[in-house]
Amino acid sequence: MREFFGKKTRDTDLPMVREMYGHLAEFCAREGKRVRPLLLIASCVGYGGGRNRDDIVRVASVLEMLHSFLLIQDDVIDRSDLRRGGKTLHMICKDLYGKDSHNPGIGNDIALILGDVLMANLHEIVGAAAIPPRSKDRFMSLIGRMLEITAWGQILDVLNSNSKRIRSPRETAEQIAMMKTAHYTVYYPMLMGHALAGRDSVKEVERIRGFSFPLGMAFQIRDDILGVFGSEKNTGKPSDSDILEGKMTLLVNGAIENLDGKDRRKFLSLFTKKRKDRGDVKAIRTMIIRSGSLETVKEMHSGLVEQSRQRLSDLSITEEYRAVLAGLVDIMARM
Amino acid sequence: MREFFGKKTRDTDLPMVREMYGHLAEFCAREGKRVRPLLLIASCVGYGGGRNRDDIVRVASVLEMLHSFLLIQDDVIDRSDLRRGGKTLHMICKDLYGKDSHNPGIGNDIALILGDVLMANLHEIVGAAAIPPRSKDRFMSLIGRMLEITAWGQILDVLNSNSKRIRSPRETAEQIAMMKTAHYTVYYPMLMGHALAGRDSVKEVERIRGFSFPLGMAFQIRDDILGVFGSEKNTGKPSDSDILEGKMTLLVNGAIENLDGKDRRKFLSLFTKKRKDRGDVKAIRTMIIRSGSLETVKEMHSGLVEQSRQRLSDLSITEEYRAVLAGLVDIMARM
Repeated sequence: MREFFGKKTRDTDLPMVREMYGHLAEFCAREGKRVRPLLLIASCVGYGGGRNRDDIVRVASVLEMLHSFLLIQDDVIDRSDLRRGGKTLHMICKDLYGKDSHNPGIGNDIALILGDVLMANLHEIVGAAAIPPRSKDRFMSLIGRMLEITAWGQILDVLNSNSKRIRSPRETAEQIAMMKTAHYTVYYPMLMGHALAGRDSVKEVERIRGFSFPLGMAFQIRDDILGVFGSEKNTGKPSDSDILEGKMTLLVNGAIENLDGKDRRKFLSLFTKKRKDRGDVKAIRTMIIRSGSLETVKEMHSGLVEQSRQRLSDLSITEEYRAVLAGLVDIMARM
Repeated sequence: MREFFGKKTRDTDLPMVREMYGHLAEFCAREGKRVRPLLLIASCVGYGGGRNRDDIVRVASVLEMLHSFLLIQDDVIDRSDLRRGGKTLHMICKDLYGKDSHNPGIGNDIALILGDVLMANLHEIVGAAAIPPRSKDRFMSLIGRMLEITAWGQILDVLNSNSKRIRSPRETAEQIAMMKTAHYTVYYPMLMGHALAGRDSVKEVERIRGFSFPLGMAFQIRDDILGVFGSEKNTGKPSDSDILEGKMTLLVNGAIENLDGKDRRKFLSLFTKKRKDRGDVKAIRTMIIRSGSLETVKEMHSGLVEQSRQRLSDLSITEEYRAVLAGLVDIMARM
């Protein structure tokens, strides 16, 4: 990505374009887990591919660009101020360009269009990558299906955040976790690596699913717990944001399911409140713990991690790659 | 597009996904000029390609999906209520989903993510299209470069709309027209057709540029004039929106350049006003006419149309395609 942004910056005559690539490069270079591109590369090698190493790395960087595109949009939607320990892109743009404009949304507007630039870069990189045509076609289709399912998860998330009414919370929370995380973060990057290694085994795709779905669900549950009980230092975003936004997670669903009578009504009324103050956030946290939901989802998390660990042996991969995946499972196992 | 959305709707088990594809299908099916996909198909055939007709049509539909993606985003950015004679997508979503949510921006949020679904569909269609690999790679790179330059034009537009201060208006208006329209609407669709026909002539690309840049500029000027003096019936959007948003166009630049002294100061102060009332809009329209700018840009428009008509004979294309392009030039010539 650094190589690509550097070239783009050198190639342009327009100071505005140089300036904007500066913002994008800074945003994309912030410390992140890079789990999706790493998983893609490891899978490709683990399935016997990866001799065209530079092109595989370039194609993998496309996943990180797509991820930055989604983070930028997510931050605009969630009105977040912080991301990966720095200002969100729309806040950077607001601070820089807001003073000369009557447009109060100028930060959002420019950030969203900078997201389009990342999407454009993605096309250019895929177009130029020296990958066998069949693998590239399958990669393109996988990118499309991954982005689509992530978008449906995101829409479900938006429809069920800041809600005035709570409807079928378990189903919703499970679907969001499956669509936004299990598919997006684990399953599709592994499928892409498999495809880029030139493989096309329907049975192996089944096995990848068996391993990646529980791991992805565990990843989302871990994120849900950190989103309510984690520290800003570790997550890079305020630890009350999930509650303030009224996000429907398995953790919240657990509280709704476990509580009853007056407690349940109180929890729902606090959780669906338009503006929650610090006392409300504290009360919600306390009720989640008291309801036993934190314990329940922690057990669910361990169970899912264990399940993916067991399915790891089903995969037809090199032992080096199996060790990498075992390491990923270990990371996910830690809270 | 109808075929693709229909299949997607049939293939899903989730009522939410079906509902959302309904919104997308309605939005994308609204009457539009379809100039970009038509130009792509005509160019492909005119350069001797197009035997794989169904796949070329599918790939061309991708341009219309990308266009809808940009329109959805544009409408969110411009806070527009109407598009192509109907409600904008974010207004549809706000009306449908706003009542159950505390989130005042839910319409924008869902519309933006539905844009991502179109982007996802684009990848899936390109991945599945039976096009020779080299042509497909070049098509991908062209899509990327087209989207990028359009995004820069759009950012320049946002930075120079609703401005408190006007800086280098001519340069800005020209760059916006070149980036947002000449490249996006004429040059790149023609290049894509040329590439999809399997051609790769640097000289012909030069000739396409010679024909398409003046035609694209003429198209933007026509749009600028209709945006200030056209009727809602013809353009599908309110005729005062460009003035209310303080869009920097060649028409506005002409007024700034032609007026002087007190008149110029008055025009600039009206044009950079935070909230313009109906009287302000009327006064701005009158000053644009009185300054002679409307006449100037109409002449510029005719000159550009004439220039592209002359360069039409340079192109190495079939006579049928030349007739199609001549027809397009005639359409652009009409106000």
